[in-house]
Amino acid sequence: MPSRYRNFRCSVPWLILLLEGSFCLLFLVSFYFSSPDVDGCSPCSFYSEFQDVNHMVIFGFGFFLVVLRRCGFSSTGFNFLLIVLGVQCSVLVEDLLIFLRVQRREGALQSVAKAVVSMTAVAISTGAVLGKANPVQLIVMSLVELIIFCASRCINRTLLQVPWWDHLTLMHVHLFGAYFGLAVTSRFPEPPPGLDKNRSTPKSNLFSMLGTVFVWVFWPSFNSILAVLKKEAVLNTYFALAVSAVAAFMLSALTSKDGKFRMTHIHSAVLAGGVTISYTAESIQHPWIAMILGLLGSVITILGSHCLQRCFNPAFKLQDTSGVHFTFGLPAVLGAVAAVVLRVVKEGIDTQWSNLSSLGYLIFVDVGAFCQTISTALVTGLITGLILNTKLLKPVHVSKYFDDQFYWE
Amino acid sequence: MPSRYRNFRCSVPWLILLLEGSFCLLFLVSFYFSSPDVDGCSPCSFYSEFQDVNHMVIFGFGFFLVVLRRCGFSSTGFNFLLIVLGVQCSVLVEDLLIFLRVQRREGALQSVAKAVVSMTAVAISTGAVLGKANPVQLIVMSLVELIIFCASRCINRTLLQVPWWDHLTLMHVHLFGAYFGLAVTSRFPEPPPGLDKNRSTPKSNLFSMLGTVFVWVFWPSFNSILAVLKKEAVLNTYFALAVSAVAAFMLSALTSKDGKFRMTHIHSAVLAGGVTISYTAESIQHPWIAMILGLLGSVITILGSHCLQRCFNPAFKLQDTSGVHFTFGLPAVLGAVAAVVLRVVKEGIDTQWSNLSSLGYLIFVDVGAFCQTISTALVTGLITGLILNTKLLKPVHVSKYFDDQFYWE
Amino acid sequence: MPSRYRNFRCSVPWLILLLEGSFCLLFLVSFYFSSPDVDGCSPCSFYSEFQDVNHMVIFGFGFFLVVLRRCGFSSTGFNFLLIVLGVQCSVLVEDLLIFLRVQRREGALQSVAKAVVSMTAVAISTGAVLGKANPVQLIVMSLVELIIFCASRCINRTLLQVPWWDHLTLMHVHLFGAYFGLAVTSRFPEPPPGLDKNRSTPKSNLFSMLGTVFVWVFWPSFNSILAVLKKEAVLNTYFALAVSAVAAFMLSALTSKDGKFRMTHIHSAVLAGGVTISYTAESIQHPWIAMILGLLGSVITILGSHCLQRCFNPAFKLQDTSGVHFTFGLPAVLGAVAAVVLRVVKEGIDTQWSNLSSLGYLIFVDVGAFCQTISTALVTGLITGLILNTKLLKPVHVSKYFDDQFYWE
Repeated sequence: MPSRYRNFRCSVPWLILLLEGSFCLLFLVSFYFSSPDVDGCSPCSFYSEFQDVNHMVIFGFGFFLVVLRRCGFSSTGFNFLLIVLGVQCSVLVEDLLIFLRVQRREGALQSVAKAVVSMTAVAISTGAVLGKANPVQLIVMSLVELIIFCASRCINRTLLQVPWWDHLTLMHVHLFGAYFGLAVTSRFPEPPPGLDKNRSTPKSNLFSMLGTVFVWVFWPSFNSILAVLKKEAVLNTYFALAVSAVAAFMLSALTSKDGKFRMTHIHSAVLAGGVTISYTAESIQHPWIAMILGLLGSVITILGSHCLQRCFNPAFKLQDTSGVHFTFGLPAVLGAVAAVVLRVVKEGIDTQWSNLSSLGYLIFVDVGAFCQTISTALVTGLITGLILNTKLLKPVHVSKYFDDQFYWE
Repeated sequence: MPSRYRNFRCSVPWLILLLEGSFCLLFLVSFYFSSPDVDGCSPCSFYSEFQDVNHMVIFGFGFFLVVLRRCGFSSTGFNFLLIVLGVQCSVLVEDLLIFLRVQRREGALQSVAKAVVSMTAVAISTGAVLGKANPVQLIVMSLVELIIFCASRCINRTLLQVPWWDHLTLMHVHLFGAYFGLAVTSRFPEPPPGLDKNRSTPKSNLFSMLGTVFVWVFWPSFNSILAVLKKEAVLNTYFALAVSAVAAFMLSALTSKDGKFRMTHIHSAVLAGGVTISYTAESIQHPWIAMILGLLGSVITILGSHCLQRCFNPAFKLQDTSGVHFTFGLPAVLGAVAAVVLRVVKEGIDTQWSNLSSLGYLIFVDVGAFCQTISTALVTGLITGLILNTKLLKPVHVSKYFDDQFYWE
Repeated sequence: MPSRYRNFRCSVPWLILLLEGSFCLLFLVSFYFSSPDVDGCSPCSFYSEFQDVNHMVIFGFGFFLVVLRRCGFSSTGFNFLLIVLGVQCSVLVEDLLIFLRVQRREGALQSVAKAVVSMTAVAISTGAVLGKANPVQLIVMSLVELIIFCASRCINRTLLQVPWWDHLTLMHVHLFGAYFGLAVTSRFPEPPPGLDKNRSTPKSNLFSMLGTVFVWVFWPSFNSILAVLKKEAVLNTYFALAVSAVAAFMLSALTSKDGKFRMTHIHSAVLAGGVTISYTAESIQHPWIAMILGLLGSVITILGSHCLQRCFNPAFKLQDTSGVHFTFGLPAVLGAVAAVVLRVVKEGIDTQWSNLSSLGYLIFVDVGAFCQTISTALVTGLITGLILNTKLLKPVHVSKYFDDQFYWE
């Protein structure tokens, strides 16, 4: 397909140039319209946490995605490109919201930090379409996703009506990223059954392990960067992660043939604890609850990986390259349910179960917020997937799937 | 051996489940019995150092151990599993000691940090039996080691009778880990001489270099995290590490055939300075003393690696996979001797050598503490090694040594 | 060449021993002659930034240089050796300058941090001669370079006559490192045209990507560690880096055949923004200016890489192994020009362009400082290159270029 290929060549750099030019222009405009900076947080502690999260999203997720044997460059390179593009876009959207008085103004570093955290959604969705989408599709997907995620957060903020819960709406990032990515990937044609490029090798698995450990180590910073009770968030996340890592090894040996450990299980399930605890990291006061959540997160991930890959994915003709559904989607759903249960139990105990109607309203609002996130992600993901596979964006032929050589010299 | 193999499959996950279940239960119990948290340290600075140490132990040591060409997964994976299991166990043991009023209560993050520091002993011992022990043996070994190390620290604390020296007793971690690991590995049958799986390849060496540089960079945080005079600890450790890194290259070229550098020498000896200085990082007031110690640490490591591998190991039929004896054991002994000498000289100058009997007592106590650590490590290590090689724990057959395939899909 | 080889064996370790011995001695002397330590900065925030920069220079640059397929050990190993040697030398030179009252005394950790920052020059120059110089040559080169860089900084400080601008003179490090390295490498004989060892493989490129991402993530810490307005420095650097990373992908696809991305372009150009912004990170008050600078930095790097490799390098018989000329040299020149322009515009607006003679003087001084740095680097680099290629230092034969096997077992 040399002719289509030349088309591809024409479009990628010009798309990027167009985007980057308009970003620069918008930053210029935004600078002159914005009010002076507010500095709420001491730079000392915040910068080091910001650095952790930045490192985790750019380096950690980049290498976490190096699972396919011929996709090393695309995984790290495109993840990097999407995140640096997306951070700028996200900061601009945030500036727009502040200009429209939908959101309070914060420090500039906080704004960038929130942008980096939102980018996790894009990193997760990228994992679902890895090796199947070309750079143009990835860029369009990530920008659309970011803007919709921002809109979904606004809806949730209005729904929850608690202004300082802004960072909790940001924690829907795993849920949104996973289901958006799944919906998008369902619109891509399936690879032919004989294709063996989407296998992993020991080398690619070792690089992926490197990325996973990075993400694991920095996860407490991720969950605590925007939290009010930082110490609690760090400790709960650490214990949840520790338990889910232990459970990952246990369940991997239990469920695999011959009782061997499977690297893909470990990669997914060690992180499940961090995803599960993300909504409740601050509010849990007993570390053992965090541990139980970590354990359940790991269980749902490993069981999910077996069920989804055998029943769900073939039925829906899904091809979830990095398994984001069970790595991020299912634990996030579990975490959402747990958050509602824990909040209701706490409120119930506080009011001695006397005010059941207020409890019902609480459940309604919380469940509503999560359902809104998932349904928005699924619907807009499907639409995005359809748009991405129109002729305009030159989808990759299935025979060229999972291959770096198509994009890299 | 399919039948024994199925046994293995049965035991690993259930052992982990049993442990993790009891940990969760004990955390629950411990939560209700413990007094409220004390927050002695500002979270800002402490969290970032804690993150450094966590990163160093989980990521750094994990990749530091990737020296064998077919053991990449086991090195990083099992190190990760043992550390997350051990940290929980260690926090529980600490809680028990606080409950028994043997130890003062500290902040929760400090408690986890101390647990992570203690885990270095397990990481070191794992290095000695790497590729020879199966996961069940490794888990049993690490839990036994942790508990004995905690007991040994209690004895030392009582012996030294200086309550705030708790973190110094923690610095015996290299000494304990190395000699415990050696004693354990001496009870494992020797691999057949023709086995070539325990060789390293350029690729595995590059990954190991990656881990080594990580450990090197974070070592100042490791030595200063529990120190009172943090700045001194950081600077002395940095200079000691710098000199030992330089000396590592020098001695590697001097001692190897053809004057080439040998990667295994570099891996071991660049870290020697950090081990040697660990007891005295705070108390040294002249950076050049730290530098001399770093130099001596490197010398003893490289000379030790030659002598031990030629004379000592064959005589005792030891097979120290990652060379923990000369990487951590010998420099720790040197550091211990140096700590006694420096303390005696300082006290002697302060009292103008007038009170020789008090000096003698000082030497007796300090030397006693170190000897207690080494002898406890050796004796309990031998016993643990014997237990690990009973039929109950299904030791691996020597022909299956040093091979990931036995444990990983 | 067994006889020359034995010579090499004789010289490396003894040279290192001589250096290290004299360093220890000089630290001893320096300790007794120096005034007590001044502690200007809270250790909390500073240590974590110091750690970042340390990590970036030792780990990041070490793996950034792993581009050649047979030079992995030399890249990481020798970079490590040179930096730990150089940091000690640099601290001693600083101590000498303080003793001679040329410089103010600062905290010890600041002093080490400045030493690590200066070492970037050595890491960059090493990139230019990578695979062609033997360890003796590298060590001599790095020590000579460090001392000359320190002298060049003293001249600049006197020229600029603003005492607190010390850290700005330190930011000439990229400019100095690149042109010194180029001048040195021009004196090395060219490798034979058929030699294919200086190619990169996907594996080496992935390791190099790993290093690049590390350097990228830590660059804001590098630019802000000695800055007064830390927050501005961090944000401007982050945006400049983000834009240059995006532009790197765009320009790589635009300029390469077939519209594919080229890994070497990405490696060079993503860092261009950080280099370009280094002089002005603090003083830029509008983020969009930083973004434009990042964009221009990336453009000049990619265009430079094409022009230099086709026209300039063959004409001057240069062989710039890692492309430091376009990765660090050209963006640094651009940054220098931009710094002058921005300062003049700012002063001009402040004084309403009334005092043109003072503006002229400003331009003269600023341009003078940059020209002095470049010309000193080129002249001393040429001389160093000539000295390195005398028989005394046993230059490597061209047939042995780019090969680890010559130095590593």
